[in-house]
Amino acid sequence: MRPYELSVAAAAEAIRGRQLSPVELVDSVLDRLHETDPRLGAYVTVTAERARRSARAAEHQAAAGHFRGPLHGIPMGLKDLIDVAGIATTASSRVRAGHRTEADSAVATRLAGAGAVLVGKTHTHEFGYGLTTPQTRNARDTGRIAGGSSGGSAVAVAAGSALFALGTDTGGSIRVPAALNGVVGLKPTYGLVPRHGVTSLSWSLDHVGPLTRTVEDAALVLSVLAGHDPRDPASMPTATGVRPLGGPAATDLTGVRVGVPRNHYFDHVTPGIEKAVRGAIACLESLGARLVDVEIPMARYIQATQWGLMAPEATAYHERSLRAVPELYGADVRVLLEAGELMTAGDHLRAQRARTLMRQEWARMLEAVDVIAAPTVPMTAVPSGRTTITWRDGTQESVSDAFVRLSAPANITGVPALSVPAGHDEDGLPIGMQLLGRPFGESTLLRVGHAYERTVSPPSRSARALARAHEPGRGMTPAEP
Amino acid sequence: MRPYELSVAAAAEAIRGRQLSPVELVDSVLDRLHETDPRLGAYVTVTAERARRSARAAEHQAAAGHFRGPLHGIPMGLKDLIDVAGIATTASSRVRAGHRTEADSAVATRLAGAGAVLVGKTHTHEFGYGLTTPQTRNARDTGRIAGGSSGGSAVAVAAGSALFALGTDTGGSIRVPAALNGVVGLKPTYGLVPRHGVTSLSWSLDHVGPLTRTVEDAALVLSVLAGHDPRDPASMPTATGVRPLGGPAATDLTGVRVGVPRNHYFDHVTPGIEKAVRGAIACLESLGARLVDVEIPMARYIQATQWGLMAPEATAYHERSLRAVPELYGADVRVLLEAGELMTAGDHLRAQRARTLMRQEWARMLEAVDVIAAPTVPMTAVPSGRTTITWRDGTQESVSDAFVRLSAPANITGVPALSVPAGHDEDGLPIGMQLLGRPFGESTLLRVGHAYERTVSPPSRSARALARAHEPGRGMTPAEP
Repeated sequence: MRPYELSVAAAAEAIRGRQLSPVELVDSVLDRLHETDPRLGAYVTVTAERARRSARAAEHQAAAGHFRGPLHGIPMGLKDLIDVAGIATTASSRVRAGHRTEADSAVATRLAGAGAVLVGKTHTHEFGYGLTTPQTRNARDTGRIAGGSSGGSAVAVAAGSALFALGTDTGGSIRVPAALNGVVGLKPTYGLVPRHGVTSLSWSLDHVGPLTRTVEDAALVLSVLAGHDPRDPASMPTATGVRPLGGPAATDLTGVRVGVPRNHYFDHVTPGIEKAVRGAIACLESLGARLVDVEIPMARYIQATQWGLMAPEATAYHERSLRAVPELYGADVRVLLEAGELMTAGDHLRAQRARTLMRQEWARMLEAVDVIAAPTVPMTAVPSGRTTITWRDGTQESVSDAFVRLSAPANITGVPALSVPAGHDEDGLPIGMQLLGRPFGESTLLRVGHAYERTVSPPSRSARALARAHEPGRGMTPAEP
Repeated sequence: MRPYELSVAAAAEAIRGRQLSPVELVDSVLDRLHETDPRLGAYVTVTAERARRSARAAEHQAAAGHFRGPLHGIPMGLKDLIDVAGIATTASSRVRAGHRTEADSAVATRLAGAGAVLVGKTHTHEFGYGLTTPQTRNARDTGRIAGGSSGGSAVAVAAGSALFALGTDTGGSIRVPAALNGVVGLKPTYGLVPRHGVTSLSWSLDHVGPLTRTVEDAALVLSVLAGHDPRDPASMPTATGVRPLGGPAATDLTGVRVGVPRNHYFDHVTPGIEKAVRGAIACLESLGARLVDVEIPMARYIQATQWGLMAPEATAYHERSLRAVPELYGADVRVLLEAGELMTAGDHLRAQRARTLMRQEWARMLEAVDVIAAPTVPMTAVPSGRTTITWRDGTQESVSDAFVRLSAPANITGVPALSVPAGHDEDGLPIGMQLLGRPFGESTLLRVGHAYERTVSPPSRSARALARAHEPGRGMTPAEP
């Protein structure tokens, strides 16, 4: 097994035990990046020299018995909406040409403090406003979309050009690419991870969170990210650190109540996805969980509420540049920003009131269950350039709407949502199971996700799969034979 | 002195001491009402029979030594946006024809529990959306506006057809008519007095509060109104009761820091008002207060922020009736509601963000002073029908805009604001001084207002003035010779 194939937890343990040098690890990741990225396009900016310098410093510290934190020497990618001092935050947009970043974002500071090493900035759908990330190609099939907007982060983690990455999620932007590329993605509870220094799409829906290869890694990275920061007005003063899972967690789920939606989440979903996710839910039951039918409240208001909140906030954020340099935006993003200008205050108020009611109704629903299990996305990665899909009953839906449909409830209500890989469809494309929980209930989500993951895919097997899946010319090969 | 002339505190004390019968008091108030209201039009609905029944019950209870609370047997008026079970809440609007009120509002329940006796429902500018209350005439000059939207409540208290009344205040609607009719009006801190069962104008700006003849009475009524009610989403769980002033409060203000605005509040104010309010501020200084210059922050955003919040919320509340029966609204209210439909989500977002900043800036300003003293209104009551005023520099302003200009900061920021009578202009029309304080700092406001009031107008003198001012045919006579 080459170093880039290691999980964050395994690599951190090896570095701490001096079996692995941070320099060796970073070199392995950079080699992998140079091998894969010309084909995949996960990175906007590669900071190889800086990464090697950081790795050498980490190695010297390790030699002296000093470890900065739980991510000492771990190579990471940061979505290019997340500020790192001295490196332009391009937002994958021409609008940001010549951008200078003066200071670290809150999460960059925390990650550096924990010892993580920046490999580069990953591509985002322009300003986070889209679900495909056209500059990046799917890690399993370069003819298909990466998903978005954190497409670069998901593909980097899937391909091995980062051990973990951060994304942002306003309407599914962490979970969608995680599902489409077969990695783990966590959108934490609103207010748990501070967004200071992160380019906003829609501040009342924006979240920052990790993309990793295992649930254990998601827990480990979250433990570094979580906690109050008064510079983010939405950061909860009560947001305390989240503990890593630690050690080999039990796969026994006795007593855990898993809600299975009888509406919304299995409507207009491909048969392959329904089968895989229902199979994953049956696996949770076999581990001791009790399945409980739940009715998703106010389902028909989800899309209108998401749109009614997101569109005007996004437009407000871009107001000046949209007037000054409209031609520098991509056509797809520009039309969304301009549509936001036409929304009335009444539409926005209705969306705000619907959100209040939806939060109350979800809190009531979540009294009866510990987590909800559902598909992350209604279909696997579509071919690049395809913008609509047609369901079996003949209804058409835009690709973006289809992705947002299952993701938006967690953004509107602020509840945490974890996407874990749950097999593949007949084309070998990854499928994600979404676990949703109570506000600040991340530890339950992670425990359930971890139990599932350990049951279906023991660590060594998935590492082998990663290595195999990315051999040149094997884009279409299922990761698990 | 006739019973209706008594202050709430004096009447309550007399009833408790059995020197005054609740029946005698209610009869005196109803006689006064029948004498004055044909001319003044303060009441929409008079509940004489119900009031007499309540008074007889209060008398029996008093005879048995049982007193329901601090307002036992005190006759009151309630603005006709405030629900009382069994009596239509007309909102002074044709839209509400045939309205049935099933349950008491939170404040009606609290007042009844404290022993208050309802005399009737007072006129509001239609649905609270205006500052004149055209159905009601000024208590000092029937050719002039009552002010609004709680015009009926202010005029009833000024005329003696209620010992106190409740109003609502979204952009000055308690303080403006209080100032124009020479009574005390208190807009409490946002979240202190619950609004359950009160017709909304703009839920993020609406407040319920008392109109009284003395500051001591305002404190007494507030002590009954204040406190948490979960049925109002904005009600603060920490909102505890406010204590009445109790006994003869000291007029010594040594150590109190009074902020005097160097901008905004004295701009475009008539010379008579500036002179009176600066005189009142000098009086506070003579009582020991220390005057401190303050700069009102973000003054040029006040009107746009108030309008940007109020208009779309009001329109959202009226959405259905505006579509179903637009012709039933008065022309002035209908045009405002229709204008709200045209506001964009961007305007609303800008107003919401400006409010957040304004609250922060006001909190900073209020660290340096205990209260701010300023005019309540920029001009005294204008002749009925006049819609604009022209300032000495030639600028024109609508009457509504002029009133809202000095009132809105307390609605936007939620800080408490008290209007106390501060003399008269050359036409004998009342002038109000506005005292603003920190959130939940009502006791400081009331203490300062009470010290001022006791200094300039000893109780017996103001009671005599009340009686004289309302003799028929003396509408234009200054209350204090």
